[in-house]
Amino acid sequence: MKKIIIVGGVAGGATAAARLRRLNEDAEIILFERGEHISFANCGLPYYIGETIKQREKLLVQTVEGMTNRFQLDIRTQTEVVKINPIEKVIEAKNLKTGVKYVESYDTIILSPGASPIIPSFNGLEKANNVFTLRNIPDTDRIKSFVDTNKPQKATVVGGGFIGLEMAENLVERGIEVTLVEMADQVMAPLDKEMAAIVHEHLFEHGIQLLLKDGVKAFHENGQKIELNSGKIIGQDIVILSIGVKPESKLAKEANIAVHERGGILVNEYFETSQKDIYAIGDAIVINDYIAKEETFIPLAGPANRQGRMVANNILGKKEPYLGTLGSGIAKVFELSVATTGLNEKVLQSKNKEYEVIHIHPASHATYYPGATPISLKVLYDKNTLNILGAQAVGKNGVDKRMDVIATAIRGNLSILELAELELTYAPPFSSAKDPVNMVGYVASNIIDDEMETIQWYEVDELVNNGATLIDVREKEEFANGAIEGAVNISLTELRNKLPELDSTRPVYVHCQVGLRGYLACRILKNHGYQAINVDGGYKTYELAKRWK
Amino acid sequence: MKKIIIVGGVAGGATAAARLRRLNEDAEIILFERGEHISFANCGLPYYIGETIKQREKLLVQTVEGMTNRFQLDIRTQTEVVKINPIEKVIEAKNLKTGVKYVESYDTIILSPGASPIIPSFNGLEKANNVFTLRNIPDTDRIKSFVDTNKPQKATVVGGGFIGLEMAENLVERGIEVTLVEMADQVMAPLDKEMAAIVHEHLFEHGIQLLLKDGVKAFHENGQKIELNSGKIIGQDIVILSIGVKPESKLAKEANIAVHERGGILVNEYFETSQKDIYAIGDAIVINDYIAKEETFIPLAGPANRQGRMVANNILGKKEPYLGTLGSGIAKVFELSVATTGLNEKVLQSKNKEYEVIHIHPASHATYYPGATPISLKVLYDKNTLNILGAQAVGKNGVDKRMDVIATAIRGNLSILELAELELTYAPPFSSAKDPVNMVGYVASNIIDDEMETIQWYEVDELVNNGATLIDVREKEEFANGAIEGAVNISLTELRNKLPELDSTRPVYVHCQVGLRGYLACRILKNHGYQAINVDGGYKTYELAKRWK
Repeated sequence: MKKIIIVGGVAGGATAAARLRRLNEDAEIILFERGEHISFANCGLPYYIGETIKQREKLLVQTVEGMTNRFQLDIRTQTEVVKINPIEKVIEAKNLKTGVKYVESYDTIILSPGASPIIPSFNGLEKANNVFTLRNIPDTDRIKSFVDTNKPQKATVVGGGFIGLEMAENLVERGIEVTLVEMADQVMAPLDKEMAAIVHEHLFEHGIQLLLKDGVKAFHENGQKIELNSGKIIGQDIVILSIGVKPESKLAKEANIAVHERGGILVNEYFETSQKDIYAIGDAIVINDYIAKEETFIPLAGPANRQGRMVANNILGKKEPYLGTLGSGIAKVFELSVATTGLNEKVLQSKNKEYEVIHIHPASHATYYPGATPISLKVLYDKNTLNILGAQAVGKNGVDKRMDVIATAIRGNLSILELAELELTYAPPFSSAKDPVNMVGYVASNIIDDEMETIQWYEVDELVNNGATLIDVREKEEFANGAIEGAVNISLTELRNKLPELDSTRPVYVHCQVGLRGYLACRILKNHGYQAINVDGGYKTYELAKRWK
Repeated sequence: MKKIIIVGGVAGGATAAARLRRLNEDAEIILFERGEHISFANCGLPYYIGETIKQREKLLVQTVEGMTNRFQLDIRTQTEVVKINPIEKVIEAKNLKTGVKYVESYDTIILSPGASPIIPSFNGLEKANNVFTLRNIPDTDRIKSFVDTNKPQKATVVGGGFIGLEMAENLVERGIEVTLVEMADQVMAPLDKEMAAIVHEHLFEHGIQLLLKDGVKAFHENGQKIELNSGKIIGQDIVILSIGVKPESKLAKEANIAVHERGGILVNEYFETSQKDIYAIGDAIVINDYIAKEETFIPLAGPANRQGRMVANNILGKKEPYLGTLGSGIAKVFELSVATTGLNEKVLQSKNKEYEVIHIHPASHATYYPGATPISLKVLYDKNTLNILGAQAVGKNGVDKRMDVIATAIRGNLSILELAELELTYAPPFSSAKDPVNMVGYVASNIIDDEMETIQWYEVDELVNNGATLIDVREKEEFANGAIEGAVNISLTELRNKLPELDSTRPVYVHCQVGLRGYLACRILKNHGYQAINVDGGYKTYELAKRWK
């Protein structure tokens, strides 16, 4: 009979335990969890604070009793594994309630300790009693009780990642005025800047004060004031630190398990660490980026759960290789859904990849049916292989669907052109006869077949400054409502008649509102012998990116 | 300069015209449309009658003027092409307003005439003035005006396909009592019976009287009464005939273009008909079924639009083969979304395919976050190749997303097992860490790896009648609320202790509510040496299918 010890009982650990039992009735399975709860709704915590989730017990997806009975597990909560001895094949556990330490032998270990919030050693932090991080249920209870009791009026959220944005939204839901401080020039690092701009605008519309390119220097007055790197002083009643997380790899390191220089536990494709019979999964490990084929650290619940099942399979005799993590993620930000998969343009630029970009702004469903809202969709592909490299989408409806379709297309090795051929379900309440994802494929084929060249929003100003011809092909009224400096307005409808006015020896840059009419203008121009280049994503992408730069 | 004639200006025809112009400024493009409108919102028509779409002009997606200007087209509405002479390369057109006929030469023709509603020659139909079919805007105007003016209280919809169901819903929205008559034993032929049962229940909840396995025999009293095949007489103030559509292939046939025995125009993968320089696309053609690789007839807006672009490409020098139609479709039926892709079980049975079935009933998103609703998802795969053959889903939320992901997976040649590996976007408002599509992959791997055998709902009764042991592993209270006749209740929690009571020489059939606990029970039983078989989809699938049989 095999004796398997699992360290950490949340996403991956709990899944592994259940899977092990389903495969084998005889194994002895001991699940150690430092905290009080196993398998809780970690992605739901902000919504309990914001009171969208009203009952605390909803957060307890599995109870210790329930899992123990159903899967015949030996679950030991509030017990920390403090040491692993891979030579003797024993671990040392410490009961956190009694302080008693004891030794347990093992045949196999699964490490699933997760990742913990990063808390820099800010000056004055030690005196602050209103600064919180959010990882587990006790953290949640602390924050909720602080909000319920102290009724803070102002909050500062430090860090504009997933948790930071979700916390900002949920504090606003509680009637609190929120300032969001972010070191980078944008929130949500997986997005590129012009896509993040849409989120910035939405945060602004919801009254959140956004302080970009700034960070915390020190806490003052017991946390009532924060001094920022810029010298600015902001006041608040509560602070959420959501700067990021770091893999919990101390236990592994001390057991001489190979660990990445940035902290994650190193594993092979079967989740085996450098020490025999010790496996690791979840947010604590370094994984392979599915697209870049490089080591990286992507803490996400979906992959952690999948790894939990796979590691159990591998321990009990299968050989299932993990092919890497794509990094598909989504966040609700007030009415917006913000989703990404794969690599973004920043990363591709840093890798000197030969990529191409497509921005479109289609409607979530047929516009003649009520309720359609725009989606801003950006897709990146490899110029040479035509492989899809990544995608980003922001909008009120149908964002998750399009991102999931693209993530599936990536997994199925479909080229950017094959997106046009996808046969997706269509009826007016759900989509358009040409779904946004199909549209990406069509735009790609226009570029690839040389029907249209494009430039990006960040290339426009320099061209105009250097005297390039930029034609705004929107209608007069649209142009009057705001236009790119230096652009000349010749609407698409007038274009054929005004061709004689254009210098055919120089390239003609065109743009419209979202890109479609610009493409049509390019076709007319190219068919008449001009070199025509469309501004990808049109005025909408350009203007938003500039406004929220 | 090329002269291209397009016959039919709605989905495929209008797309082809625009695409031709984008590719070529010089071609002469004449678009003939028998009706008054081009490129209208054909999928939106029922919703204008139901007043969800409030403005009639919303149905006019493109106007003749708009398209003429933008794409320099020669659009001739209310003009029917009545004859094609492929030898002389001329057509004869008839202006339906003036009756004047004239001849037009061509280099290339694109036939995009669509499909027309089937109207059997029922006795008494000629005297009825309240019987309508729905294909275009004049039809829509007629129905809406009849409803607005005559304020019918009772309606009969004949035919329970997409249009029938959408019309039934929209008539109910107008306060009309609806009876739906359907010849088959279920609505929505692309669904299998137990999935259609969910729709039957929903129609019933919305007060629609459903008469299955019955059809119209004759109309009486000027359409105020219908005599059904069963002998039943039903009364109504308005009748919608939505029995189905047939390809409009008369013109093609008369031009000696090869046509299928059931009426569709035959084309090769480049949409070339049997006559040189004549192409055909859209609802009028016979297409290749993407999965079955057989000729079939699937009238859908998405494929028609795609074909419109492809045929234009092919005419102007590309060689893009059409790989077939998957048949991805969706309908809103009151609060339900009903979606399908690929082949269903009925078709697979008729083809004697070796397929396997999976039914699951997951939540649309994490249940701890408000608003989650169940999705019933059925997926079929090839037992030998593990290719996905088709899927069906019914539920209130997130149905379109899952079907689109599966349709994409099929297009990417992913096996049923690879659905488990899809990395889809997850946050509690959108999904679960294990998305329903992932769950299908997990269930499949349980079956394929022999962790679990399953039987289908329709196999249960015979087994029980023959004395098989069927254990209901739900809790006592669930069992008491309704159970399969002959099932014995041993809850999953009790199962391990009660194993000694079970005869290990005979197979043990188990079931729970939706299939998950049944699977866990199977694992316990199999790990203890029993042959255990789970009822796929659980009591939920069985009970619904039986109740609405």
